Amino acid sequence: MVAFGGNALLRSGQKGTYQEQLANVEQTCEQLYNLVKRGYFLAIGHGNGPQVGNVMLQQEAGRQLFGLEAQPMDYCGAQTQGAIAYLIEQGMNRVLVRNGLRRRVVSLVTQVVVDKDDPMFQNPTKPVGPYYTREQAEKFHEQTGALYREDPKGNGWRKVVASPKPVRINNIEIIRQLVEVGNIVITVGGGGIPVIEENGVLSGVEAVIDKDLASALCASQIRADALYILTDVPKVYINFRKPNEQALDTITVAEAKKYLAEGHFTEGSMAPKVRAGIFFVENGGKECVITEAGQLDNPDCGTRIIG
Amino acid sequence: MVAFGGNALLRSGQKGTYQEQLANVEQTCEQLYNLVKRGYFLAIGHGNGPQVGNVMLQQEAGRQLFGLEAQPMDYCGAQTQGAIAYLIEQGMNRVLVRNGLRRRVVSLVTQVVVDKDDPMFQNPTKPVGPYYTREQAEKFHEQTGALYREDPKGNGWRKVVASPKPVRINNIEIIRQLVEVGNIVITVGGGGIPVIEENGVLSGVEAVIDKDLASALCASQIRADALYILTDVPKVYINFRKPNEQALDTITVAEAKKYLAEGHFTEGSMAPKVRAGIFFVENGGKECVITEAGQLDNPDCGTRIIG
Repeated sequence: MVAFGGNALLRSGQKGTYQEQLANVEQTCEQLYNLVKRGYFLAIGHGNGPQVGNVMLQQEAGRQLFGLEAQPMDYCGAQTQGAIAYLIEQGMNRVLVRNGLRRRVVSLVTQVVVDKDDPMFQNPTKPVGPYYTREQAEKFHEQTGALYREDPKGNGWRKVVASPKPVRINNIEIIRQLVEVGNIVITVGGGGIPVIEENGVLSGVEAVIDKDLASALCASQIRADALYILTDVPKVYINFRKPNEQALDTITVAEAKKYLAEGHFTEGSMAPKVRAGIFFVENGGKECVITEAGQLDNPDCGTRIIG
Repeated sequence: MVAFGGNALLRSGQKGTYQEQLANVEQTCEQLYNLVKRGYFLAIGHGNGPQVGNVMLQQEAGRQLFGLEAQPMDYCGAQTQGAIAYLIEQGMNRVLVRNGLRRRVVSLVTQVVVDKDDPMFQNPTKPVGPYYTREQAEKFHEQTGALYREDPKGNGWRKVVASPKPVRINNIEIIRQLVEVGNIVITVGGGGIPVIEENGVLSGVEAVIDKDLASALCASQIRADALYILTDVPKVYINFRKPNEQALDTITVAEAKKYLAEGHFTEGSMAPKVRAGIFFVENGGKECVITEAGQLDNPDCGTRIIG
């Protein structure tokens, strides 16, 4: 199983045209193809940060300009699952054709169950979507109950949502069956559409599930041999950007936990990736490799977390 | 296989809130459940007219207000596949739980191949998305090559796209396998994301595939026993809304073709549904039933097209 960020498609500094996104995704798929060549059956989890941010801005713009009803974040996340999966299917299809390999690429709209009593719901901290004035934020809060916080840099008020832990991936058996026969399966887009489960009924909630953690859960439940988490550095480092910076080759779960506790990894960046790796290896996985996409042609790339 | 319109979720006259959409979809799923009770394994094709219209408006609003890049129609269609599938999954899940039946509901992002030489591409006539001024339309045409036509009612200029025939449904074998083991499969949303195929490479095109025809092709290729096409009248009529109006119970393909040729069915409304029914029965299907969702509790409902 491979997890990569939504910025693999929609890069900062680019305008975000369709052609740019297609070129980006094709490059990423070419790099992922190294894993296919090595014999892996592939499941792909991906983020949606820049995309869902844009959809929420577009929803707000549509509300202001055309009076269209703005949809909640789970609905916006579902939109990005469709669009990003479509782009990855296109990119992977091109790479497969170019390399003369026949594999089906199939994308599932994926709901991920979170615990309605997850303590994170008591303290939503992840800012998402457009900036609003204080008056707008107060009005929306009254209308929808959503929480808004003032941006520390003074840009205005933004919706804040919780980032609860993924508990169960809907349709995981189908994902496993599709991967096991050689299909390349795209799933848990954006960490999955967050839903809570009450008496078997799934209901959407406004939240963001960490895509690396959702991918780790998925990888564990489809019994993946390895979890690759892609980032923008070739390895994980301790004492990152300090004179005594040190790249890590292979570390045990125990070492990873020790480094985490010592604060070597940035929250919102490397720390959740390391945690996802630990989760995978503690839940039946053999190894988690954290690296950048461009290193995948080297079988010994990245930092390996093992049991 | 069942096909229904995007207006089953987003109804005219409503604001289009998330709660309204969920209530609408749950009602439709409750009606579809009559087919499940009768023993059918179910595949669901759906339209996206109102939804993709809104997404295109939101893209335009985001461009104007926030300078966000507006994405082409295939990308917007992929967005609606994700969102609508998510809502149908939610509605169907509630109905299944209420009725104590265990079935998985699974949604595939679905590309549908059209012929790049389809004659419809020479004459795009389907208006989609926002109204523009003549100057804007000319600028967009220069930038993207897309065609714009003046609205006959004087509301401005709108993008017009072709409505080519569906030729091949991507991943159809997977759809069939998933349905055959009892999963409820949601696919060909909005008629499918239209793509052309050149040397095995699939590329998106701005077009609208008729969702009834795409569902008929899907139904035929998964070897469905029956194709149900839902509309807003209980049966198909000849001499519709005339003094000699007559509801049709069971008609043969030959009769259906005769009535079509005689102009009994409105283009853009009943005519494509009847054509989809003819296609299905001529390509191995046993019967196509055209009716409204509220009639599905009656096994003899609707108009039946048979061989």
